[in-house]
Amino acid sequence: MPITSNGNGLLFRQLFHKDTSTYTYLLACTKTNEAILIDPVIDCVERDLKLIKELDVKLVYGLNTHVHADHITGTGKLKQALPCCKSVLSDKSGGKADVYLGHMDSLKFGNQTLEARATPGHTNGCTTYVMHEHSLAFTGDALMVRACGRTDFQQGDPSTLYESVHKQIFTLPPHYRIFPAHDYKGFSETSVAEEMKYNPRLSKSKDEFINIMENLNLPYPKRIDASVPANLVCGIIDE
Amino acid sequence: MPITSNGNGLLFRQLFHKDTSTYTYLLACTKTNEAILIDPVIDCVERDLKLIKELDVKLVYGLNTHVHADHITGTGKLKQALPCCKSVLSDKSGGKADVYLGHMDSLKFGNQTLEARATPGHTNGCTTYVMHEHSLAFTGDALMVRACGRTDFQQGDPSTLYESVHKQIFTLPPHYRIFPAHDYKGFSETSVAEEMKYNPRLSKSKDEFINIMENLNLPYPKRIDASVPANLVCGIIDE
Repeated sequence: MPITSNGNGLLFRQLFHKDTSTYTYLLACTKTNEAILIDPVIDCVERDLKLIKELDVKLVYGLNTHVHADHITGTGKLKQALPCCKSVLSDKSGGKADVYLGHMDSLKFGNQTLEARATPGHTNGCTTYVMHEHSLAFTGDALMVRACGRTDFQQGDPSTLYESVHKQIFTLPPHYRIFPAHDYKGFSETSVAEEMKYNPRLSKSKDEFINIMENLNLPYPKRIDASVPANLVCGIIDE
Repeated sequence: MPITSNGNGLLFRQLFHKDTSTYTYLLACTKTNEAILIDPVIDCVERDLKLIKELDVKLVYGLNTHVHADHITGTGKLKQALPCCKSVLSDKSGGKADVYLGHMDSLKFGNQTLEARATPGHTNGCTTYVMHEHSLAFTGDALMVRACGRTDFQQGDPSTLYESVHKQIFTLPPHYRIFPAHDYKGFSETSVAEEMKYNPRLSKSKDEFINIMENLNLPYPKRIDASVPANLVCGIIDE
């Protein structure tokens, strides 16, 4: 058993990368010690490796909710340090990984199960990972606290994103806790019920949503030209 | 009932102020909707008021774990917006508040209970709030993830801090989750077991701890001259 357990079979840690306001999630089965990281950041790999060692868990998967445009994934560097770790991406991402997940595929670590729900619209490969046993959903950039990912670069499409969130996330039970890939205002989580009611974009009609997203006039993402090519190969570009 | 509930009677939200890396905690009884904020930050009061309104909870207390030296508390501003809210501080803090808590006093909100444990050493009034029913402890600056508060200003004293942590926090059950007032590396929580084993300062002997704390050579805190006088009166200085 890891050094810490909350008694429900799951060890859960939310981690933050301040420069890009990215959340990384460490999840471990407290029976078998098998662990996964969702959306690790390359800058934080040393921190994450130390925590994994201290908590005495074994990293079996490094997952990305999508091919990020704002930071380089830590998956490749984690794999170099821990050969037991496999990289995971959506089969629609266009990226390279050890394991590809399609819509409604499951991924197991120890006695714990993640369900992969395809939630494209920010990118083609965006995936929401749901843990029904614990009422948790990791939504990446598809749905954030009172916000959502941009739809004006990569394969962004507001109509697709609206359908994804309404059909794959808003159909989850209302009390399910939502953990996003980013937050810029200091929120750490939300719930399905809250976003259905208060999300300033996604609580609107589809036409209103498309209109909002098409008029955001956001600047070109600072790190996209370095991040996307690296993230298509899980963070490690062969020299 | 608030819009969101995890089914265990407690609504819990961790909030972050990026500029000062401060954590604020919103806790609510899901039966009665009564809520408290621990360590609110004045810069985030608008965000917090909006969340309180959206979650449909009633703020009854604004607590501070201590008289902070790095940011101004939001308690005074929250009280102006929500007259039902009372400010809470330790009876040893030297500050002004509506409610003073002594060592082992309890504070109730709805069906939920906080136990106040005096944990001086960073300041005289430092208090750790424990919720036994949920295995949670809010340790302020007394104990942070792999770290602890400074002991070289206000009423800081390393010997006192060591005794506080070892007698009041490390005696809690090992699985209790620890939520600090700050983190600078992206950690959101820890546990009693982890800090007893891995805290690089407090896992040492008392003499070693005192030696470490007396040789940190830290710069004078940037915001202390504005923060401490304001926080002694819960953030609102009468003109």
